[in-house]
Amino acid sequence: MDEFSLINQWFNCSQLQPHTQHIILGNGDDCAVIDVPEGCLLAQSIDTYIAEKHFPKNAPAKLIAIRTLSASLSDLAATGAEPHSFSVAISLPEADQNWLQPFSEGLALLAQKYNITLIGGDTTCGPLCLSFHVQGFVPAKKILTRSGAKPGDRIFVSGTLGNGAGALPLVLSGKLWQLDVSDREQQEENCLLKAYYAPQPQFVLGRWLSDNGVRTAIDISDGLLADLGHILTSSQTGATLDINTIPLSSSLLNSYGLQEARDFALTGGDDYQLCFCWPKQKIFPEGCPVSVTEIGVITDRQGIIDTKGKRYAPQGFNHFSCPGL
Amino acid sequence: MDEFSLINQWFNCSQLQPHTQHIILGNGDDCAVIDVPEGCLLAQSIDTYIAEKHFPKNAPAKLIAIRTLSASLSDLAATGAEPHSFSVAISLPEADQNWLQPFSEGLALLAQKYNITLIGGDTTCGPLCLSFHVQGFVPAKKILTRSGAKPGDRIFVSGTLGNGAGALPLVLSGKLWQLDVSDREQQEENCLLKAYYAPQPQFVLGRWLSDNGVRTAIDISDGLLADLGHILTSSQTGATLDINTIPLSSSLLNSYGLQEARDFALTGGDDYQLCFCWPKQKIFPEGCPVSVTEIGVITDRQGIIDTKGKRYAPQGFNHFSCPGL
Repeated sequence: MDEFSLINQWFNCSQLQPHTQHIILGNGDDCAVIDVPEGCLLAQSIDTYIAEKHFPKNAPAKLIAIRTLSASLSDLAATGAEPHSFSVAISLPEADQNWLQPFSEGLALLAQKYNITLIGGDTTCGPLCLSFHVQGFVPAKKILTRSGAKPGDRIFVSGTLGNGAGALPLVLSGKLWQLDVSDREQQEENCLLKAYYAPQPQFVLGRWLSDNGVRTAIDISDGLLADLGHILTSSQTGATLDINTIPLSSSLLNSYGLQEARDFALTGGDDYQLCFCWPKQKIFPEGCPVSVTEIGVITDRQGIIDTKGKRYAPQGFNHFSCPGL
Repeated sequence: MDEFSLINQWFNCSQLQPHTQHIILGNGDDCAVIDVPEGCLLAQSIDTYIAEKHFPKNAPAKLIAIRTLSASLSDLAATGAEPHSFSVAISLPEADQNWLQPFSEGLALLAQKYNITLIGGDTTCGPLCLSFHVQGFVPAKKILTRSGAKPGDRIFVSGTLGNGAGALPLVLSGKLWQLDVSDREQQEENCLLKAYYAPQPQFVLGRWLSDNGVRTAIDISDGLLADLGHILTSSQTGATLDINTIPLSSSLLNSYGLQEARDFALTGGDDYQLCFCWPKQKIFPEGCPVSVTEIGVITDRQGIIDTKGKRYAPQGFNHFSCPGL
């Protein structure tokens, strides 16, 4: 099968093109061409995922698609953007229909869920490797960046942290996220596996924050310390964290105990929750659409300390020191 | 060295950010954010390049950068767009400074030449693989697409064809493009090697065509028959070619003879010249900024034939049947 038949069969289908708004030219020309609505800016991000490094090579292709595209979309959520479209560059050892069909289904599931249209791509033969370029619209004055934190701002995170990292030993043992499980222990495992295989980009929260005057957020992809560290570096501030308040799921606590669970939250990757800074002069209103937890405060001293004065290095997942999964 | 030091050292430098126009947020946040000028659309393309498939693994990193980014930019030229910015996703076996420095220099050379700013990227450890996302602005009514060819339109190509494919045996023997060579035979080799390692995206021609009422063009990346074939499929037309008029360089003719040179032009890849359809009712004006050659005419019969009625399959470089370089 040649490249063009491949593209036509698995990537030019209505499931992957749920809308055509603002798309002048889609898949299948030299370029995709879009127009950006008046008053909006275009937020964009590119991410690359390597087999055996970012996902198990033999995981079901549908789960690989869901995990990698969800992680990519998370950057748009952290910017307060409304997702619009995406492109994918795929390197595959062979044009295997049994891999491409479920991969395309996984992409389609997210395309429908987030109303994003596949507008371009490239397929080539090579080691299994995926790159996603995702983009969305954001009103000019509502961008969330890393650089707006000010001393006194309250630091919050969404959801619970550490589940993605806690899932890794299960992932390495070949366990997969299942839609339905009954046994209690399996439910806990499954909750962790879901965080790894089907992370939820926090679009609803990102837009709510953006609408409510927040200007500083990041998605936690490399661990809380590393990602909060990016905000602090960009904003030239520091932070004091109340380590006891960091939200941990009962699944993670039951599987690992408090100390290890907390370590996963602080330095593990793959959470895709948002960390944001609530301006000190603003009241936190009713109506936040997802569970968020206050975990600390921005300070004018460099670095991260806890309430007892202990210093934390902004360490996290290092894409070059880690040998793989 | 961790990912962030790497990015800062080699990808956050003024040489790679020659302008900040329409860039609200560049490298170093969750997303890059741009605004698109009023009256313009945004043309975008993503391409992926695998070591030993699209370039020799051991070629100088500077030439790898120039070859791959130039090829990516060619899609923008074929759409009539003004290049604006790009992102790169890099998978590298190790964070090797001796590779990253010349790679960054190669990107910087093109960033300066085409005034494009690096606005985002991702680096990870893995097999050597590059994906570029490139984008540019094009006035709404001036897009060049594949789908506007009409019977009677005159088919042109720019430059000479087949040099990139003719370079491949030299590339495989480890020869590199040199800036200065004196010996005559080496000059001819070097002319071919230049086509492979430093293809020229046809931005000036793309915009001239777009300004002069052309609406149908493609860049020849997979061979004339394959790429003209895309225009014909998208436009639901056919073509008659005068095979004798296909422009071939003296370097290619001297190295391979007429028959093989013509085969390279018809079915070899890596030309990055433009093939375009001149509307039959329009006079071809003075002032075309580059050398172009009329090679045939669009017809209402399907397929490609020559002036003697011989049929040609729209074959070219197949990204899945080709085992590598």
